[in-house]
Amino acid sequence: MQELEDRIVAEGTVRPGEVVKVDSFLNHQCDVTLFDHMGAEWAAHFAGRPVNKILTIEASGIGIACVAARHFDDVPVVFAKKAQSINLDGDQYCTSVYSYTKQQAYPIILSKRFLGPSDHVLIIDDFMANGKAMQGLLELCEEAHAHVEGIGIAIEKGFQGGGDALRDEGYDVDSLAIIDEIRDDGTLVFRH
Amino acid sequence: MQELEDRIVAEGTVRPGEVVKVDSFLNHQCDVTLFDHMGAEWAAHFAGRPVNKILTIEASGIGIACVAARHFDDVPVVFAKKAQSINLDGDQYCTSVYSYTKQQAYPIILSKRFLGPSDHVLIIDDFMANGKAMQGLLELCEEAHAHVEGIGIAIEKGFQGGGDALRDEGYDVDSLAIIDEIRDDGTLVFRH
Repeated sequence: MQELEDRIVAEGTVRPGEVVKVDSFLNHQCDVTLFDHMGAEWAAHFAGRPVNKILTIEASGIGIACVAARHFDDVPVVFAKKAQSINLDGDQYCTSVYSYTKQQAYPIILSKRFLGPSDHVLIIDDFMANGKAMQGLLELCEEAHAHVEGIGIAIEKGFQGGGDALRDEGYDVDSLAIIDEIRDDGTLVFRH
Repeated sequence: MQELEDRIVAEGTVRPGEVVKVDSFLNHQCDVTLFDHMGAEWAAHFAGRPVNKILTIEASGIGIACVAARHFDDVPVVFAKKAQSINLDGDQYCTSVYSYTKQQAYPIILSKRFLGPSDHVLIIDDFMANGKAMQGLLELCEEAHAHVEGIGIAIEKGFQGGGDALRDEGYDVDSLAIIDEIRDDGTLVFRH
């Protein structure tokens, strides 16, 4: 998506550890016009899929998912919560996600009332790198026996392999900007 | 707002400690059509105010704020983050919010790049009870010398006093549903 790539180039900054910071429009300050255009792109890509729910994870995914949902007949958005601890009361789906940044796993939870076998889910998130968070969301869908119709990502760090691994598994992953390389001078190389 | 009150009555549940749980449409699963109608209500109430930014706090406020922003000429949304620890690098506004639920204070932060003296801010959040989180957001605005044009809340627990205290201070607080009493049988009494 040209508009998104242009914004990444214009406003993104590369930090040590191949971190691409885009907090001026994506995940701290939110450009809702851009979010709307992103929603339109995913709606075109996933046209014909019987999506009846959008799943995301707090916090950065929520705004994008809620604006994008308007392009999918206003289907409900449900977001997985990062929990303090595993809750074993049986009302929640639960799995854990390993974070390389924090070098530890954290639990994510989702109420069983909001995802089940009748759901056809589009998963949306702001970033995909190694795909660990997405793996967690897919595990929640599996636990719920929900059908995953597709995965919509704003920015995929292609060189970290998470997206391609999911494509190899048969998932329809639509990333609106895929960064395949960060050169030593900070130049970003996009996949086209 | 009748639509919101109806949903609270139909789907909300009252939990011990006067907790009103509305996670089927407001803060775990998100009804984006309702969010859109809420945005229209705030836009009518705050019409004429020169709002150029919406401020909220993660996580539940983000979806509501992003959908509502579409009714305010797509102004940017910025959300305060709940931080692990106070960051003293000088790039961020920072304050702390006392949580009665957790019986402890947690820091909230906001990048200085996204709020400043030229900003006319509408603060949006899903809930207001004693108003401690809102106090934190107001402190961030004060630190930034930003002008607070108003406060839009989905559900205010009127009996906990946070909203009325802010009105007494002169803030324009538009809560779309104000619960003034939770009777022993669980009946909710709304302010009209």
